[in-house]
Amino acid sequence: MYTIGVDFGTLSGRAVLVDTRDGREVAQAVYEYPHAVMDEKLPSGKSLPPEWALQHPQDYLDVFYKTIPAVIKESGIDPNEVKGIGIDFTASTPMPVMADGTPLCFVPGYEDEPHAYVKLWKHHAGQPQADKINAVARERGESWLPRYGGKYSSEWFFSKLLQILEEAPDVYNKFDVFIEAADWVIWQLCGQMTRNTCTLGYKMLYQDGSYPSEAYFAALNPAFADVISTKVTGDFSPLGGRAGGLTEAMAEKLGLPADIAIAVGNVDAHVTAPAVKATGPGVMVMIMGTSTCHIMSAEKLEEVEGMCGVVDGGIIDGLYGYEAGQSGVGDIFAWFVDNAVPAEYQEAADKAGMNLHAYLEQEAAKQKVGEHGLIALDWWNGNRSTLVDVDLSGLLVGATLATRAPDIYRALIESTAFGTREIIEAFEGNGVAVNELVAAGGLPEKNALLRQIYADITGRTFKLAGSSQSPALGSAIHAAVAAGLYEDVAAAGEKMGKLKEEVVTPIPENQAVYDKLYAEYKTLYDYFGRGENDVMKRLKKIRNTAKGED
Amino acid sequence: MYTIGVDFGTLSGRAVLVDTRDGREVAQAVYEYPHAVMDEKLPSGKSLPPEWALQHPQDYLDVFYKTIPAVIKESGIDPNEVKGIGIDFTASTPMPVMADGTPLCFVPGYEDEPHAYVKLWKHHAGQPQADKINAVARERGESWLPRYGGKYSSEWFFSKLLQILEEAPDVYNKFDVFIEAADWVIWQLCGQMTRNTCTLGYKMLYQDGSYPSEAYFAALNPAFADVISTKVTGDFSPLGGRAGGLTEAMAEKLGLPADIAIAVGNVDAHVTAPAVKATGPGVMVMIMGTSTCHIMSAEKLEEVEGMCGVVDGGIIDGLYGYEAGQSGVGDIFAWFVDNAVPAEYQEAADKAGMNLHAYLEQEAAKQKVGEHGLIALDWWNGNRSTLVDVDLSGLLVGATLATRAPDIYRALIESTAFGTREIIEAFEGNGVAVNELVAAGGLPEKNALLRQIYADITGRTFKLAGSSQSPALGSAIHAAVAAGLYEDVAAAGEKMGKLKEEVVTPIPENQAVYDKLYAEYKTLYDYFGRGENDVMKRLKKIRNTAKGED
Repeated sequence: MYTIGVDFGTLSGRAVLVDTRDGREVAQAVYEYPHAVMDEKLPSGKSLPPEWALQHPQDYLDVFYKTIPAVIKESGIDPNEVKGIGIDFTASTPMPVMADGTPLCFVPGYEDEPHAYVKLWKHHAGQPQADKINAVARERGESWLPRYGGKYSSEWFFSKLLQILEEAPDVYNKFDVFIEAADWVIWQLCGQMTRNTCTLGYKMLYQDGSYPSEAYFAALNPAFADVISTKVTGDFSPLGGRAGGLTEAMAEKLGLPADIAIAVGNVDAHVTAPAVKATGPGVMVMIMGTSTCHIMSAEKLEEVEGMCGVVDGGIIDGLYGYEAGQSGVGDIFAWFVDNAVPAEYQEAADKAGMNLHAYLEQEAAKQKVGEHGLIALDWWNGNRSTLVDVDLSGLLVGATLATRAPDIYRALIESTAFGTREIIEAFEGNGVAVNELVAAGGLPEKNALLRQIYADITGRTFKLAGSSQSPALGSAIHAAVAAGLYEDVAAAGEKMGKLKEEVVTPIPENQAVYDKLYAEYKTLYDYFGRGENDVMKRLKKIRNTAKGED
Repeated sequence: MYTIGVDFGTLSGRAVLVDTRDGREVAQAVYEYPHAVMDEKLPSGKSLPPEWALQHPQDYLDVFYKTIPAVIKESGIDPNEVKGIGIDFTASTPMPVMADGTPLCFVPGYEDEPHAYVKLWKHHAGQPQADKINAVARERGESWLPRYGGKYSSEWFFSKLLQILEEAPDVYNKFDVFIEAADWVIWQLCGQMTRNTCTLGYKMLYQDGSYPSEAYFAALNPAFADVISTKVTGDFSPLGGRAGGLTEAMAEKLGLPADIAIAVGNVDAHVTAPAVKATGPGVMVMIMGTSTCHIMSAEKLEEVEGMCGVVDGGIIDGLYGYEAGQSGVGDIFAWFVDNAVPAEYQEAADKAGMNLHAYLEQEAAKQKVGEHGLIALDWWNGNRSTLVDVDLSGLLVGATLATRAPDIYRALIESTAFGTREIIEAFEGNGVAVNELVAAGGLPEKNALLRQIYADITGRTFKLAGSSQSPALGSAIHAAVAAGLYEDVAAAGEKMGKLKEEVVTPIPENQAVYDKLYAEYKTLYDYFGRGENDVMKRLKKIRNTAKGED
């Protein structure tokens, strides 16, 4: 028997057909969104202000229509063997829809209204609203605020919804439901609207059985007082639950039997946990790509400095799910390779038939720990955990006339590993034990030096995800649970989740030097990150003034 | 009437024939030293240890033989119209010679002895000796130490001489005189040995009428007690003085009349002062190239933090000459262009028919002050003034994923200008007024953005050297004084020195922003440079341990 996991990314959706006995990935298919990210203009050509990032819901439907038939065809299996579908999505990626689920941008007359479209996770134009959400919460001493590391993001659900109310009240009044795309696509498959507990807790402020109070929402904006009863209606469902059965209409379109299990929606990072067997307490998964997301379940509820959120059942039903993150990781390495490496390295890489990242890694790997004499603060894209401060910036210290590109490349990799160690120490320092570490995502898969540096700097042995499509595999695992093939996500993850045989192990001599370098990193981290010298923030202010942006 | 100025640089010597009425440069010729800098091996192929840098004295003599006849020929003047020769040299660049002036490396049996050659200014292998010179001076409370910013350099005279004594006592016992190459070449021209008051004060510790005591030298090494009476004999002569007349033998070789005036030797930076009319008190000349040297005369003797030296008559006879410096300026820009600029900029520069420096300057010049959001500490090559610390290193703060190469290029230029402002403020803070500023050297000549940044950051209007061969012109000015054509160097400089018409003037809006950025620079300068966080030094130690170098 099989299930299908569909992973909705920023630029494409990917379906993987999985054997539910052992997690074997039988077939996969990718569909790139024709509208991609709309950050400059709408399909009509109407231009968008800075910081906007929209998507088109038709692209999501087309992912189903294109990829599901494709994986069935490619696998050659009998469609009746498919027992369920699960999905994961970027988050928070919410959209306004009508009571029947029709996206507002499909409603005649709204095709050219920017606020009618899906607001992608990286839509940052609601920053003024996020600022207000935080300021009012601090003033009122809202108890939920510390659960989010003390800061609600402009990327999240209510910042985006309040932006619509404040910038386009007529649009706000038109639609019936504001919903995460993760939940909307499930609705389209099974005809039932439900909200998943993952985004509910991490993005929608649902804590200890309730949303913030009407008084709080009214303090943000009087017209926002009834937001929950008017726009955020609907039931909740736990992860691994069955949202409903595949509708007849969809079954026909997809070439699958009607009424097979449709699992409750999930988020790409969080759904990775069972795909790497990280369903028990104390196993931290680092999902490493352009940025890194750290997720872990635990039995206790604690407040950890700078975490992105802690949610009851946020990753695994029955455990508290913690999330933390580093806002720049692979992004920083890509920045470096694109902007600070001289031509001679590209030529040498070409000659060796390697890409530039791999070539720099090879050169950097020849060094002993500490030989480059550099330390960086990995804040090129701000600091998410533990400082939750987008106004911090990157720092490099120790440069000499003998410093070369592989030196800096290595120092940047190290800086992100120091950042991860800082997060692990924040968890442990707040009584949340991190017993095991697992690395997933493209970065650790491709970069052996990075793997060793992370082991040496964290001082921890760790394993690697066994699939390069962990989120889709995790979604297929959730589908198997929703289909009743396994009792719960932990049991399904144990059979269907995959880890590589390889164990990355710290080298004691390296650890000894890295402990010294981490002490230096930490001193700089505190000095520049905790108010002793706010030069980074002042430089950004001066920059914004120079650019006429403040 | 004419004089000839000869400027001995690190890789070549250059003669300029100058009209003494107005400083017009009639002809010039360059001769590149065939032995260049010997930092890997002797002419025999014998290899040299790290940190060594030697030169061959025959190259210096050949500069005279090749360039002086060449400028006379090129100019077409009657050789009888040439009234004198002056020279300037890199410093401290001393050499061991016999009593008759024969370089030790010319003595049979010493051709293959490294210590028999000229030790070029950047020979750093005497660092252990410099460390001892400083430690013993601090212990004994030697009164001269503060005159050198509290630190005697490994590049200077006694570090190099003590290195010979300690590493090769037999060689030390063989030669009769240790002498600056500046003074040795004068000796070769006029047959008279004399030592110039510039190197005497800046490099040879001659202060208030005497060298350090025998007891001090004995404390360094008992065999060093009599160093002055055995190796550092000879008279002193003031700058602008006549060392002697051109010998018959030299006159014949050079095609000049015998007995014309040979001026006392001088140092390249210091001789620049009259070439830019900076002979009065309070006019600071910045000679900007790979590094920057700041020289200024004043009527008072004060101790300024981190100056390289203050010497009675060290620049202009009758005034105290102050010297300060930045150990990396053009070197840092060159490092950046060679090591941190991606190919696309080289391609764009090629397309525009510009060199890469000029192209980056053009791009950086499009920005408003502060727009790049960066600050650097210009310590890629350590910090000479005001911290006198070679173990400091470069820092960049403020990097984001949007940072591009021209941003960093501009930040690096700014960082060197902040370093100059720091030096000016150290002078003024210690009661030595800096009334005017003049920029000389290749950097400000070529780089309009750099000129404006220096004006904006220092908040000072300044002029530029009128000649691109200021040191050679300055030497010709000294020759004119030695020949009796002018009463003193100030009078000669007034007529023969040259400034460009252009005045570089601060732009008030830029100044206002740069004042804010300088405040940030200064906070970082003090934090990393004055012991609050010695991370740079610890990183160098960790680096050295990793490389097995400590």
